Amino acid sequence: MNDDIPDIVIGRLPIYLRALTHMAAEAESDTTSSYELGQRLGISSAQIRKDLSHFGEFGKQGTGYNISYLIGQLRQILHLGQEWPVVLVGAGYIGHALAHYQGFQYRGFHIRWIFDNDPDKIGQDMNGMLVRAVSELKSLIQRENVQVAILAVPTSAAQETTELLVEAGIKSILSYAPIYLTVPPAIQVRYTDPVIQLQRMTYYLEE
Amino acid sequence: MNDDIPDIVIGRLPIYLRALTHMAAEAESDTTSSYELGQRLGISSAQIRKDLSHFGEFGKQGTGYNISYLIGQLRQILHLGQEWPVVLVGAGYIGHALAHYQGFQYRGFHIRWIFDNDPDKIGQDMNGMLVRAVSELKSLIQRENVQVAILAVPTSAAQETTELLVEAGIKSILSYAPIYLTVPPAIQVRYTDPVIQLQRMTYYLEE
Repeated sequence: MNDDIPDIVIGRLPIYLRALTHMAAEAESDTTSSYELGQRLGISSAQIRKDLSHFGEFGKQGTGYNISYLIGQLRQILHLGQEWPVVLVGAGYIGHALAHYQGFQYRGFHIRWIFDNDPDKIGQDMNGMLVRAVSELKSLIQRENVQVAILAVPTSAAQETTELLVEAGIKSILSYAPIYLTVPPAIQVRYTDPVIQLQRMTYYLEE
Repeated sequence: MNDDIPDIVIGRLPIYLRALTHMAAEAESDTTSSYELGQRLGISSAQIRKDLSHFGEFGKQGTGYNISYLIGQLRQILHLGQEWPVVLVGAGYIGHALAHYQGFQYRGFHIRWIFDNDPDKIGQDMNGMLVRAVSELKSLIQRENVQVAILAVPTSAAQETTELLVEAGIKSILSYAPIYLTVPPAIQVRYTDPVIQLQRMTYYLEE
């Protein structure tokens, strides 16, 4: 890991990339400014300029950023030059939603395999993909050197499945299970839990 | 909003609450320390103490925090003393996963209604709840003064649906649509987009 750049800065780059991609799709202008981008995202223009300055000079004083150039640079910084194959573990409701999610396309990822250990689910078709047995997970991941996994198994199976993924060589896990996973220091885990986001908002609401 | 406490601090409180709830369930000890909590979460103990100090003195030098007391305090700070009714808009794959999500229970939220505008989905049962027509949304939200919504509609319908929710009186929206939503300043929106989290991790991977 590059210790020089705070992870919180890295965490904002995908958000900038998404906003720029929308601007490009809207095709109103070839250029944008840190002000315009900030207005869209509720982030100060100073913050955006500071974040981007970690990686180089992408804009010109007065003319701003060329949108498609900055998209290309951000994709390169985030290692999105290739499409990453992703293994999805868990073919339940969340797995189903992910298998049908339109948002992976053109954003650097595609689901390569789906695994489950429920005999009723194994062999099923999910959006054109076959649900495979968890027993095949390790050999398939190793065969194609897959590094990214999405965990959508029940809470009770989450830690055990994580250990299996790590053993197979997975380096980055996005987990939908609402528990904290224990992994070796070199493995990255990020969590998706709608309640965490809802609770963050109720702080500001009147009971 | 309380401008004194940074939103980033508020954002960590639900994470502390979740970890403490797991500790309470494990029932190994009645007390914990900022060190133990930090170890579990990959956050420094100094950060945890600083975050909590915004709200009062919850622990004692040497004996640490009483877990159930701190859970109660955090729930109160985050306004989780009541269960918040939530409207879910969108009965597709993501809506389905949310309607079956076990993680809302005992954490301050329950889905009150599910809406969709697809005649094929209206009237369907989703985990014991009836899918209702979007045309009923405004009157139902106003009748029970619901403030929280989850948006799980297709991207093309997201902005329009958001405007309908705001008009009906919704104050906080958790969106699964991969676009930035425009809302009045008093309305909070948070986004769930798996690709943003995946892209944040590929920065650290070798292509």
